[in-house]
Amino acid sequence: MKLMEVLNEIHQQVLPSLGQGKVATYIPALANVDPMQFGMAITLNDGQYYGVGSYRTPFSIQSISKVFSYTLALRTYQDGLYKRVWREPSGNPFNSLVQLEYEAGIPRNPFINAGAIVVCDSLVSHFNDHERAFNEILGFIHQCSGDNSITIDEVVAKSEMAHGFRNIALANLMKSFDNFDNDVNTVLQTYFKHCSIVMNAQQLSRSMLYLANNGTDPISKKQLINATQAKRINSLMLTCGHYDASGDFAFRVGLPGKSGVGGGIVAVVPGKMAIAVYSPALNEYGNSLVGTKALELFTTKTGLSIF
Amino acid sequence: MKLMEVLNEIHQQVLPSLGQGKVATYIPALANVDPMQFGMAITLNDGQYYGVGSYRTPFSIQSISKVFSYTLALRTYQDGLYKRVWREPSGNPFNSLVQLEYEAGIPRNPFINAGAIVVCDSLVSHFNDHERAFNEILGFIHQCSGDNSITIDEVVAKSEMAHGFRNIALANLMKSFDNFDNDVNTVLQTYFKHCSIVMNAQQLSRSMLYLANNGTDPISKKQLINATQAKRINSLMLTCGHYDASGDFAFRVGLPGKSGVGGGIVAVVPGKMAIAVYSPALNEYGNSLVGTKALELFTTKTGLSIF
Amino acid sequence: MKLMEVLNEIHQQVLPSLGQGKVATYIPALANVDPMQFGMAITLNDGQYYGVGSYRTPFSIQSISKVFSYTLALRTYQDGLYKRVWREPSGNPFNSLVQLEYEAGIPRNPFINAGAIVVCDSLVSHFNDHERAFNEILGFIHQCSGDNSITIDEVVAKSEMAHGFRNIALANLMKSFDNFDNDVNTVLQTYFKHCSIVMNAQQLSRSMLYLANNGTDPISKKQLINATQAKRINSLMLTCGHYDASGDFAFRVGLPGKSGVGGGIVAVVPGKMAIAVYSPALNEYGNSLVGTKALELFTTKTGLSIF
Amino acid sequence: MKLMEVLNEIHQQVLPSLGQGKVATYIPALANVDPMQFGMAITLNDGQYYGVGSYRTPFSIQSISKVFSYTLALRTYQDGLYKRVWREPSGNPFNSLVQLEYEAGIPRNPFINAGAIVVCDSLVSHFNDHERAFNEILGFIHQCSGDNSITIDEVVAKSEMAHGFRNIALANLMKSFDNFDNDVNTVLQTYFKHCSIVMNAQQLSRSMLYLANNGTDPISKKQLINATQAKRINSLMLTCGHYDASGDFAFRVGLPGKSGVGGGIVAVVPGKMAIAVYSPALNEYGNSLVGTKALELFTTKTGLSIF
Repeated sequence: MKLMEVLNEIHQQVLPSLGQGKVATYIPALANVDPMQFGMAITLNDGQYYGVGSYRTPFSIQSISKVFSYTLALRTYQDGLYKRVWREPSGNPFNSLVQLEYEAGIPRNPFINAGAIVVCDSLVSHFNDHERAFNEILGFIHQCSGDNSITIDEVVAKSEMAHGFRNIALANLMKSFDNFDNDVNTVLQTYFKHCSIVMNAQQLSRSMLYLANNGTDPISKKQLINATQAKRINSLMLTCGHYDASGDFAFRVGLPGKSGVGGGIVAVVPGKMAIAVYSPALNEYGNSLVGTKALELFTTKTGLSIF
Repeated sequence: MKLMEVLNEIHQQVLPSLGQGKVATYIPALANVDPMQFGMAITLNDGQYYGVGSYRTPFSIQSISKVFSYTLALRTYQDGLYKRVWREPSGNPFNSLVQLEYEAGIPRNPFINAGAIVVCDSLVSHFNDHERAFNEILGFIHQCSGDNSITIDEVVAKSEMAHGFRNIALANLMKSFDNFDNDVNTVLQTYFKHCSIVMNAQQLSRSMLYLANNGTDPISKKQLINATQAKRINSLMLTCGHYDASGDFAFRVGLPGKSGVGGGIVAVVPGKMAIAVYSPALNEYGNSLVGTKALELFTTKTGLSIF
Repeated sequence: MKLMEVLNEIHQQVLPSLGQGKVATYIPALANVDPMQFGMAITLNDGQYYGVGSYRTPFSIQSISKVFSYTLALRTYQDGLYKRVWREPSGNPFNSLVQLEYEAGIPRNPFINAGAIVVCDSLVSHFNDHERAFNEILGFIHQCSGDNSITIDEVVAKSEMAHGFRNIALANLMKSFDNFDNDVNTVLQTYFKHCSIVMNAQQLSRSMLYLANNGTDPISKKQLINATQAKRINSLMLTCGHYDASGDFAFRVGLPGKSGVGGGIVAVVPGKMAIAVYSPALNEYGNSLVGTKALELFTTKTGLSIF
Repeated sequence: MKLMEVLNEIHQQVLPSLGQGKVATYIPALANVDPMQFGMAITLNDGQYYGVGSYRTPFSIQSISKVFSYTLALRTYQDGLYKRVWREPSGNPFNSLVQLEYEAGIPRNPFINAGAIVVCDSLVSHFNDHERAFNEILGFIHQCSGDNSITIDEVVAKSEMAHGFRNIALANLMKSFDNFDNDVNTVLQTYFKHCSIVMNAQQLSRSMLYLANNGTDPISKKQLINATQAKRINSLMLTCGHYDASGDFAFRVGLPGKSGVGGGIVAVVPGKMAIAVYSPALNEYGNSLVGTKALELFTTKTGLSIF
């Protein structure tokens, strides 16, 4: 079956599920999004792409940004990064302080909030400045996507900052355990800004090709990270990419992936392609409800699960 | 046996234990204190007092200040306060975030850090300003002690503020649960300043007489709180006054009491007197090691346990 | 005011609250009890007693039995007992395995289930046999109450045994940590049988006089434990006697006490008297709802709080 | 590079690491095993196999047995099984009661002890008898491996039973939450017996081919489960197969796998082959230390990671 047919079939099959789930409500900019949207895009390693529905509608990538910041930090610090952020599933909600306290301020993985915050802290240290750290992350996304027009939604960024008490708590808890080097507020600016980056499904699928191609962007031919690092990021997305429903996603979809509360999910088929879906209503674990269904249909129809 | 003899006997008996335990080290101002000090003072409801050892040496009262701020907040908000801070032993260390997260931002009691911070927040709200809130607490201590010379150690206050990441985390976590009204940093200034108040054992024992006399200071005859409130604060000191060693203190000493990491402990004999000890080396639970022994000896010798 | 008048007043005042709360439902024998009952009895150290309502109605004493087994074990092992069961409030439900696992199989106190089970294990070891251990506990209750007719409800005992999976879990968890010496099932027979002892409020208040009189039963003049041990049991009842509402009970009532899910509560006024109430409907923490109110009224009316 | 060369290279490279780690010591039968052993076997989907070192030395498969019992239960109950055992990484040690209590008796996944015990319970229910349930599991292993000689080590089974207090605790805790149907002791006999099955690395690699071939054993051509089920078991092995080091294994090795405290690990290369290693000294997480290294070398050398 051709990929465009697959996308069209999926589109038809998920339409009845639109309306289930709930959009994120902790900030107005996300709460006001139309929950009935659905878009899906695939980009192959050779650059061909396919899209269906609202695949060109920009949305807030939120936690999907953690893949980019982690890639940059891993490239910068290599194995040194593991002293500061571990690589195990957490078995707890994405913003829990409990495990962080029991485990002396070392976050379980870079895809829970505490882990991504410490990743941002490491980048602020490396680039000596929180604005430059953010610009480096954004520049890296420009590279990955081949699109320099991508930018942030300032309203979302400010709104996140104004409601980020729990993230401030996480950062200060890590600081109390000496796993935080810079001023909490400046690092959180980098963190919230990179969560507020806006992309559409097509841009997102394009930007993840380096993970489908052993660390080298297959279109620009530029090596962004090495093959081992790419495999490791994929393994992390598989085991930890969907908060406390990561096992469920691996079980049903069978692909490395990362979701955001803005309703986006990206998934990687190693050696072949990257996929992005967008549908803002979330399931009880904070992952796009229809997006997860669409990806489950995708691997069922194509047999492209890694398992 | 006369109380002065009791004090002298205790002094002799605890001398060999000086040198055990460790002074608090998280800020230099506490770390540099001489661990070999011991002082103890008793003030009776009729105003007579007895002292032994370094009972006139000023020290940082630290968490003992939580008794005063809680008294003031209880007088201000009465039963309304219990919606924001509960009255159960915590079964966890004094600064744990775990229970606070499981229990949706409502601290177990006002004598763990989170509880005292929310008490300070309530006072900042009531007095419309964090400096005024602190001044009201200090003024209340002046009333309780009949001594307007008591003030804070600014070096300790600044040092606490600079190392208070975990307390900032606690406050932000409560704010994320909507149990915090004011700006975190301003409330923490009130909190850290009132922890940095300096008193000696004699002043401290004098200042607690209102709890030994049903809420009315027996010397000035001024009613500070009502009898029910005084009994309740005493019960809270008994069940929660010594962090995660409160049961042990009740077991061994049998009096309502409150300790601070500066090495002070106060205890109340309802209807009769208040006692304060000072010895800066702490046991594994953060309570004065020799101070606890001295109070255990006191109730053994006098039979004045409430049980 | 005379005590009989106090009791009558309390009786009138609590009548409107009968019907609130819920009886324990985990075994049929408790679920079928009439929730509208209320009885209260006081016995003075001189042997005078007062009763109101259903104060002669027998009921299942359940966890109140833990006071007797602990007394016997403390008399047997003295300070050696603290290696196996600690004396801190738990901050967790009465039957939680969480804290027990974190704390390597040492229960926080003898009044949570795990603690009472390890106390029974120690008595089975000492008396070399689980039936004899139970008989020694029962014999001790006969001594304390001066009443040899007290016995158990076999139906309740069997029912408890048949539904005791969580208690079996607790015992096996302690065994895995080497804090359990005998066969789990035989020890649990001792445990469940002593929880199934049947007494009325008058018998219960009479049986606690040794704790109101420094360890010596004031009527038989027999010393059951020493004064220090008696004070320590009182302190434990105050800090740990009502599961995760112990602080609340101390706060509202201000007396050492112990409750059972059968609807009974005992309280001790050191030096003066013991009190027992019975009303089977429980509050959300598993303590008699009307019983707690009655005791709160008692200390408010008489001023007999220890604080 | 040919697979036999790969195995020989790995053998040489891991030799210096023999002697690190520690064998399991909780039962004598495991404690007395020679820690210096290493064996590794590969079986391809076409039946060809390769072996190196002690690849024919029989050992206790321990938790690897959970893959077989889960396969059988999934085939029996299909999606109905997920009501009783979930499919998320736990973020906790393999035998923790904490999470099980917080999550009301539903184990996180079938590869932690609680999960495997509930799987055995479901099989005892289905086969109406605990001996038959065990025999069905053993018969299934005979089918998967094409080898009817495989059996259990009775000494290990008895020893496990005699030291299984924590597992008894887990089972009783689930029973208290109504997630357990049969008598605890009989189910645990099934559980401990299937953990005591003895296999060598060659047999183990052969027996996992059905997971490398979409549920159908490629040699006998018999369909054991359907393709979706096979993928799901592979995803579970990837996210949950190595206790609280599952993320680390996915990260370093990049293959679905399952380890046992006897020192064995199996791994699956979907579509191609299954691999088994044996080396009894364990790392701090209870997984074979040298076995993990050998598998990491294998995917590094062959590029056969699924990522």
